Amino acid sequence: MKEKIKLGYIGLGRRGTGMLISCFAPMPDVDIVAICDLKPEKMEKAVAILKENGKPAPQMYTDYKELLKREDIDAVAIMTGWQPHMPIAIDSLLAGKYTAMEVGGAYDINDCYRLIAAHEATGAPLMMLENCCYGRRELAALRMVKEGLFGDIVHCAGAYHHHLVAEDLLKVVDGKLDTEHYRLQEYVYRNGEQYPTHELGPISKVLSLGRGNRMVSLASFASSAKALAEYMDKNVEEHPLKGKDIKQGDIVNTVITCAGGQTILLTLDTTLIRPYYSRDFEVRGTKGCCIECHKQHATYILEGMKEGVFDNEQEFFEQYDHPLHQEYVKAGERGGHGGIDWLVVRAFVEAVKNGTDTPINAYDTVAWLAVTPLSEESIAKGGVPVAFPDFTHGKWMTPGEPLMGKYSLDVICTDPDTPIFPGE
Amino acid sequence: MKEKIKLGYIGLGRRGTGMLISCFAPMPDVDIVAICDLKPEKMEKAVAILKENGKPAPQMYTDYKELLKREDIDAVAIMTGWQPHMPIAIDSLLAGKYTAMEVGGAYDINDCYRLIAAHEATGAPLMMLENCCYGRRELAALRMVKEGLFGDIVHCAGAYHHHLVAEDLLKVVDGKLDTEHYRLQEYVYRNGEQYPTHELGPISKVLSLGRGNRMVSLASFASSAKALAEYMDKNVEEHPLKGKDIKQGDIVNTVITCAGGQTILLTLDTTLIRPYYSRDFEVRGTKGCCIECHKQHATYILEGMKEGVFDNEQEFFEQYDHPLHQEYVKAGERGGHGGIDWLVVRAFVEAVKNGTDTPINAYDTVAWLAVTPLSEESIAKGGVPVAFPDFTHGKWMTPGEPLMGKYSLDVICTDPDTPIFPGE
Repeated sequence: MKEKIKLGYIGLGRRGTGMLISCFAPMPDVDIVAICDLKPEKMEKAVAILKENGKPAPQMYTDYKELLKREDIDAVAIMTGWQPHMPIAIDSLLAGKYTAMEVGGAYDINDCYRLIAAHEATGAPLMMLENCCYGRRELAALRMVKEGLFGDIVHCAGAYHHHLVAEDLLKVVDGKLDTEHYRLQEYVYRNGEQYPTHELGPISKVLSLGRGNRMVSLASFASSAKALAEYMDKNVEEHPLKGKDIKQGDIVNTVITCAGGQTILLTLDTTLIRPYYSRDFEVRGTKGCCIECHKQHATYILEGMKEGVFDNEQEFFEQYDHPLHQEYVKAGERGGHGGIDWLVVRAFVEAVKNGTDTPINAYDTVAWLAVTPLSEESIAKGGVPVAFPDFTHGKWMTPGEPLMGKYSLDVICTDPDTPIFPGE
Repeated sequence: MKEKIKLGYIGLGRRGTGMLISCFAPMPDVDIVAICDLKPEKMEKAVAILKENGKPAPQMYTDYKELLKREDIDAVAIMTGWQPHMPIAIDSLLAGKYTAMEVGGAYDINDCYRLIAAHEATGAPLMMLENCCYGRRELAALRMVKEGLFGDIVHCAGAYHHHLVAEDLLKVVDGKLDTEHYRLQEYVYRNGEQYPTHELGPISKVLSLGRGNRMVSLASFASSAKALAEYMDKNVEEHPLKGKDIKQGDIVNTVITCAGGQTILLTLDTTLIRPYYSRDFEVRGTKGCCIECHKQHATYILEGMKEGVFDNEQEFFEQYDHPLHQEYVKAGERGGHGGIDWLVVRAFVEAVKNGTDTPINAYDTVAWLAVTPLSEESIAKGGVPVAFPDFTHGKWMTPGEPLMGKYSLDVICTDPDTPIFPGE
């Protein structure tokens, strides 16, 4: 086992810099020996952040391919915007590096096949840093499902209800509209389930996808695209994309059917005014369920309980908190988004240190990435269901493979010799 | 205008008897001159109910065709189980009677065409008694939409989240399992969106379906069917349907696409354990929305309001209650289901008295009925979207026709000479 890992860190935009500050830089067992961005000023800022954390200055690269040539690097974190995700990840895997990538969808199904081919060529693990897999509610539900409390699971649902217009797509930074952020372009040119993984990641674990179950078909439906254009007409004077015909439907609903007979409903809802953020996480079984109402609470019911209950999440947390979350709270919460960023990064770092596969593995990652191009395809075909590829060559039928335990995120919480919080 | 109407009342099961007690019998301007049921004891009970309400004894029929022959009858209410709905409604329309039918879906799309043909042959109005169109939340949202407060509507959603197993499908009445109720059979043999109208009815009004907009395609997806079989195995010793292979998926999601670009998501959820009843009514526009959280509350937001609000329904009701609801409360609530049963029956009765079309008209009714067979077809085809018929012969493109006002339910609330509560 490695005491420390050497990490190459690629992409220092909003998310890359934020994650550096909140998660990567403070970790004593992570040495960021190389950073990469197209903008030198972003790299200078990263060097300063590392310095504040008592870390040495890393080598700076503007060409990620140069970074990948370094043999001393164990692992690579890809924190860029969506478009470079796939080429960098493919190259990183081919270079034999443990590869972590931020969330986002693929652009074409063939990129998913290339990722898997690269993973299989070198054996290098690939992990999407899907932080919501580590949400307290999602972890507790996962535990309850794996302990059989919900019976047979027949349906799951989740959503990305997040009004992103002023908060992200057309953000005003220091009094000035940020016209360089990449994401608006995606909304102008594409129409599909662009951001499925915050809900699909946890659902994937609940349904043991890739481990005895898999997604078999997908159908997507987009509403008309009105809100973003209306907002730009009214509020944006100058923007390179102003006046363009926006393609992304305001609401996209996607239904996935699984080999085990379960349905998964995903909703993308990011351009319309709405009162609050929510992931509307829902797990439905024959003996019980978890139904998120909005981000403040969820309701659980189990066989034998009287119906008519509301908002009883705290009682359930007391009894069913996932051991990983318990350990996390005990050690002191840290990182962004209520701790889930920290946990997902720790899961990756622990795997690199131990030389094991990542709990969100390459097959999980490409399946989740594939939802976006499949959704675009289904919408382009008028909602016709499209077949979901089996990236595993049939291995998904073996519940134990490619697996790592009964709770698929356990790798970082069951081994007492591998504390998730180094130095504690 | 008629002072009183003469009504033929067909079907005296659970719902028929309940509606007789709570709505039809107490109305002073409704004379039930004929009743029909296959079971004489049900009819005897109905006679007693009418007597308690100071009404004369009606003629009793076991053959509805005999009842329809009576020329003195103005209108017919079909309160039977689902299967006889369509044949009786077709015959009633052909007999020239104002026809009201309880909710439920069709079995075959051709029945919808036959209903419309019968309606057009005699001009007799047809109204589905969809009580949820008259829910306080649904009415307030309808008003807000029609007043433009939500901007362009791009998406609506609704559900029938109602755990029916012990409450309806396998109900114990007086200590004995009711094995005669018709609905379990529907779950054993069919797989589709069997019960769409509680959510689709109000959404149809919000989206002006049939009045400048229409449903163009529909796709349905069913989860596996596990909960009902599991329940029967454990809890039911004897039942004619025990041991049958149950076809109805535990959760059915249906996505409808409209000519105006809106999507409608419908969820049927009636066999799985869940904590509470909800219709999850949701209307999403470019300037505002209404999002039901569970049956106790909904959250509204309008342009200019700060996000982060929750459960502000009461404030919105104060400002935006539909005039119909206001009038109803002023007159004193009555009838079942919080008053919506009373209101929907009044809407029908007023139309009969005035000789006008019904606010939920024949084209609305058949479109809503059609969802069920189209959903079964889509599921049978693996989720392929199916085309939605245009029952209006193109008239749907004319916003004013077949219409009756800006708020499509206004017929019973705008005319001060037509009080909705007779004698007050």
